[in-house]
Amino acid sequence: MTIGILTSGGDCPGLNAVIRGAVIKGDRIYQERFVGIRDGWRGIVEDDVADLPRHDVRGLSRQGGTILGTSRTNPFEHGGSERVREVMQRHSMNALIAIGGEGTLTAARRLSDDGLPVVGVPKTIDNDLSATDYTFGFDTAVAIATESIDRLRTTAESHHRCMVVEVMGRHVGWIALHAGLASGAHAVLIPEIPVSLDQVCEWVRSAQSRGRAPVVVVAEGFIPAGEERATAPRGLDAFGRPRLGGIGETIAPMIEEQTGIETRTARLGHLQRGGVPTAYDRVLATRFGAAAIDAVIAERWGSMVSLSGESIVHVDLHAATTVLKTVPRERWDEAAILFG
Amino acid sequence: MTIGILTSGGDCPGLNAVIRGAVIKGDRIYQERFVGIRDGWRGIVEDDVADLPRHDVRGLSRQGGTILGTSRTNPFEHGGSERVREVMQRHSMNALIAIGGEGTLTAARRLSDDGLPVVGVPKTIDNDLSATDYTFGFDTAVAIATESIDRLRTTAESHHRCMVVEVMGRHVGWIALHAGLASGAHAVLIPEIPVSLDQVCEWVRSAQSRGRAPVVVVAEGFIPAGEERATAPRGLDAFGRPRLGGIGETIAPMIEEQTGIETRTARLGHLQRGGVPTAYDRVLATRFGAAAIDAVIAERWGSMVSLSGESIVHVDLHAATTVLKTVPRERWDEAAILFG
Amino acid sequence: MTIGILTSGGDCPGLNAVIRGAVIKGDRIYQERFVGIRDGWRGIVEDDVADLPRHDVRGLSRQGGTILGTSRTNPFEHGGSERVREVMQRHSMNALIAIGGEGTLTAARRLSDDGLPVVGVPKTIDNDLSATDYTFGFDTAVAIATESIDRLRTTAESHHRCMVVEVMGRHVGWIALHAGLASGAHAVLIPEIPVSLDQVCEWVRSAQSRGRAPVVVVAEGFIPAGEERATAPRGLDAFGRPRLGGIGETIAPMIEEQTGIETRTARLGHLQRGGVPTAYDRVLATRFGAAAIDAVIAERWGSMVSLSGESIVHVDLHAATTVLKTVPRERWDEAAILFG
Amino acid sequence: MTIGILTSGGDCPGLNAVIRGAVIKGDRIYQERFVGIRDGWRGIVEDDVADLPRHDVRGLSRQGGTILGTSRTNPFEHGGSERVREVMQRHSMNALIAIGGEGTLTAARRLSDDGLPVVGVPKTIDNDLSATDYTFGFDTAVAIATESIDRLRTTAESHHRCMVVEVMGRHVGWIALHAGLASGAHAVLIPEIPVSLDQVCEWVRSAQSRGRAPVVVVAEGFIPAGEERATAPRGLDAFGRPRLGGIGETIAPMIEEQTGIETRTARLGHLQRGGVPTAYDRVLATRFGAAAIDAVIAERWGSMVSLSGESIVHVDLHAATTVLKTVPRERWDEAAILFG
Repeated sequence: MTIGILTSGGDCPGLNAVIRGAVIKGDRIYQERFVGIRDGWRGIVEDDVADLPRHDVRGLSRQGGTILGTSRTNPFEHGGSERVREVMQRHSMNALIAIGGEGTLTAARRLSDDGLPVVGVPKTIDNDLSATDYTFGFDTAVAIATESIDRLRTTAESHHRCMVVEVMGRHVGWIALHAGLASGAHAVLIPEIPVSLDQVCEWVRSAQSRGRAPVVVVAEGFIPAGEERATAPRGLDAFGRPRLGGIGETIAPMIEEQTGIETRTARLGHLQRGGVPTAYDRVLATRFGAAAIDAVIAERWGSMVSLSGESIVHVDLHAATTVLKTVPRERWDEAAILFG
Repeated sequence: MTIGILTSGGDCPGLNAVIRGAVIKGDRIYQERFVGIRDGWRGIVEDDVADLPRHDVRGLSRQGGTILGTSRTNPFEHGGSERVREVMQRHSMNALIAIGGEGTLTAARRLSDDGLPVVGVPKTIDNDLSATDYTFGFDTAVAIATESIDRLRTTAESHHRCMVVEVMGRHVGWIALHAGLASGAHAVLIPEIPVSLDQVCEWVRSAQSRGRAPVVVVAEGFIPAGEERATAPRGLDAFGRPRLGGIGETIAPMIEEQTGIETRTARLGHLQRGGVPTAYDRVLATRFGAAAIDAVIAERWGSMVSLSGESIVHVDLHAATTVLKTVPRERWDEAAILFG
Repeated sequence: MTIGILTSGGDCPGLNAVIRGAVIKGDRIYQERFVGIRDGWRGIVEDDVADLPRHDVRGLSRQGGTILGTSRTNPFEHGGSERVREVMQRHSMNALIAIGGEGTLTAARRLSDDGLPVVGVPKTIDNDLSATDYTFGFDTAVAIATESIDRLRTTAESHHRCMVVEVMGRHVGWIALHAGLASGAHAVLIPEIPVSLDQVCEWVRSAQSRGRAPVVVVAEGFIPAGEERATAPRGLDAFGRPRLGGIGETIAPMIEEQTGIETRTARLGHLQRGGVPTAYDRVLATRFGAAAIDAVIAERWGSMVSLSGESIVHVDLHAATTVLKTVPRERWDEAAILFG
Repeated sequence: MTIGILTSGGDCPGLNAVIRGAVIKGDRIYQERFVGIRDGWRGIVEDDVADLPRHDVRGLSRQGGTILGTSRTNPFEHGGSERVREVMQRHSMNALIAIGGEGTLTAARRLSDDGLPVVGVPKTIDNDLSATDYTFGFDTAVAIATESIDRLRTTAESHHRCMVVEVMGRHVGWIALHAGLASGAHAVLIPEIPVSLDQVCEWVRSAQSRGRAPVVVVAEGFIPAGEERATAPRGLDAFGRPRLGGIGETIAPMIEEQTGIETRTARLGHLQRGGVPTAYDRVLATRFGAAAIDAVIAERWGSMVSLSGESIVHVDLHAATTVLKTVPRERWDEAAILFG
């Protein structure tokens, strides 16, 4: 049997560990042969497929990124099921394991609806997929953000400044919430919960009054309540085009202006996606990869692996790709008690 | 209201974060006053109690260990409920938060049965308490073990050796299982699953035949099936007393003898308990500490905080301290597929 | 004897270790009493001075930042030698240890010229002070930058992008050079060496042609040869004021435009200053602190501690504060051989 | 031109970075071809040589260990210069770069005396080679030891114990000295300086009297003054053979007996050799590798690269392999002031 694997969408710590888990189990137990599809769906569309021997996954669990590369290509914009079927046949692929986020899982669902033998592995560094308790990559992003905040903190305290740290989270605030809790931030601002600039400044002043250098963790998709201007393009770039800066850079001067406390920003950006994944993510990703093989052997096409409590289970892609898992009010309230 | 806090038993990453979570919430929301009981139950027994002002928990979430110190004193060997009641009254303690393992939670249960206002926070680096999905400290121990195995691996590969890494886990193999999975070990040996030395050597030879330096992760409480002599005292120490060495040091020469592959041991020991906790543990411990205050305010004496899925809940100490959470056969089988 | 200590200027990893080295040696050998001057020269000017007991330096070597705080106050803009003498007398200070960069060491020199008992400890994260082989903080900044580049790299490779990483170095390129060498960057751009955008693009294309994701490390003070517009204010900020962006953000779109390779930027900023210093810096800073006490005991006023080979020596502040230690052409050539 | 490379002796962080530095420079500037000799001199003796294309050194600077493997084979026990000449000719090797410790550099010297085109790169994790200011690997070993001591410390403090940490250093105490200084140890015991058990206990009691958990860092080759029995085999192993335990395990019970303070040991062992090298070591090793090519091009046979201040220089192997660089009395005295 020949199984194709692809990784699609944004990079995420643990992708390589998923690949390794699948290849080792498939090779060891079922003597499967694997082919790697390069750069996500692009590799299918452009028939860029190569052997993926067991030897290639040596030591992969501790390697960030994905050896298969990735892209944001959508197969349904390039021949859809027809093309996928064609390329799979050319390489005698009996199954396809698609590792990706909402877009990829949706494509996987459509393909399996059209009779193709596809299973999915969920990938979202934001932890916003409802159909699984956790996804790999999230713990690593939180760990990197927390470690960065720990570093930024000592400098802020030496200079008696307020530090605004912008982390990933365009639509949901899970990374901000967990990194803020872990690092003892004085305010955590997430897209789900409206918070006014006045409230932020109150927390900042409260921390400062206790002799602390205030730390504000803000998710990139947050908008201060009542501050619509924050969504407008901020400034112009070197080519004279409207420049979308970060929310951190936007609210920092506002905080400084209102509180009189010198305020700086740090935007963690791509740092949060890269490097060696945490042990937690390496375990989860490896288990996901091995479970994907179980789904293939059982011919559970149109399913996706998922974590439920301590067990890895299989859920229907139809159910999986609907609701965004946002931070519930109670979780934020639980953390907000420790703000200021 | 005055709340007493104590940390008892073995050190565990996250203890300070629990203390901080409780003190900040108690102070912030309820204006509670806190006293720290020194070195676990010893501080109650010997009336060694001091103020624990909010200021003392600054930056504590990233600090390993416990600022209150710990010991293995059992209050029921030193005056039991009488003594505890007496000292609590002397310091006007309205409640006691006991953070500890099975022994401490059992003592907490007995004290609350005798009418004392006690709540528990579970602590076990081995993750072997049934009544909670996870306990803080486990993720950090796994992370440290994994990072150490990553380091030991490059040297083993340069020298073409087999490396046996002994990790914590006297009765259960959770740390070994997770660290082994995360690091891609070729064999994971845990107390719950009987494995013969022959089988271990088979995995070792298999890894070597593929050009890898074999890595064996063994929990300290593992005994090779059929090797009762491994439980016997190994050798004598400098004072001529029987010396209990580690299981790693015992099986390494056995592996070398049987496979002909040079085999070395590393015993991680106390390293796994110390230093900055992972972000995951800092979040969980902080949430546990804050939830302990909720239990106190609600006067849920005889309860213990617990993690259930994503929520922090309260469970009865009576139910909590019974069954050891061992590694189920299926979890080990799932991992064993990747051995060799 | 009473010794005053202050830390001035930008935060730098190792400041706390210097303080600890001085206090422990002074207390241990000479029974000195210490007072901490808050926030650099501000503490002298505003007479904000407090006891600094031995107990306060516990565990300080591994703590980033400075417990004394810092500022950019210049004593010669606020009463100069008169004021310093006055405050020193008020607190019976027999000596003053000033830990800081060029500005602080210059002030220290002027004060000692005016007969005040001052010794200096050099601090520059950029490693640009000529009168010492190395200064503490530099190794940590390089380590943080290198670790960040390692992380950013795996994501860049997954997405086949070019990554431009901006590091500290307004006037000299030591951090960029060392971080670039350590991380295997394909181009290192520093203020000392003129390099055209064309050359940068050549290196980028060369790396990409070998299947690598190009990594460009650029010091913040670099300006592409012939690109004067890069020095002009780039764009406007949210308040409509000219906004000085980073050089990384400026050249990334230029590289993308010229090579056709998707190019992203990461600006490490304050991250490089904070957190636990490396072991190397903890050793050097501790040795500097202890040596400052030697200078005080020997009444070597107007001197500064310095590293020469393996030894800590004392040099005259007059000689010390003149020439900027820039990256010599040979060191950059040596590294440039590995570019592309 | 074809250049052979080998790495010999104990593993050391940075070996791969040396290989990479040499291959990239040789390939880039001189279009050299490289062959990798497997497992040190064994590969010459057994003619186990393979191509080493540029592609193989991708990302190597951050990889611990050596992709060429290593062994302790001595070529002069297996055919000496004759055999080396023979194999070099068979593979058309015009030059040989030998990366290793004292034994390897001595062999390199002998071979070049016999007219073979050999240059050396010094490797000693202990930093005990006189002919160079520093060798790569040392900083990493110190960093790992320091990080481990930081971790062990928090647990020791929670339990009010004394912790004895045994680090590498069979003949010299550089790693112990630097790790001890960096971590703020209360005693550092090294082979060069005689210290009695009484003195050690004095430092331990002194630290404890100030409320600290005493930390003793001991180099593996240390012997307490007057304690010859410590050199005798300690105990028996599982096969009934005399077992050489560690000095840490020997003195810990002695300290406990004499001071009454519960004392534990941690033996860091192989952990100190492995994993990602520090940025400092990656820079130094890369520079060494590139400089080895310079030596080859200049036909400086019988030379070894070396660090002198900030420059990489070439020294004669004859001068290089004589004197062990031990810790001078003044360096230890400088640190001892901070003990207790």
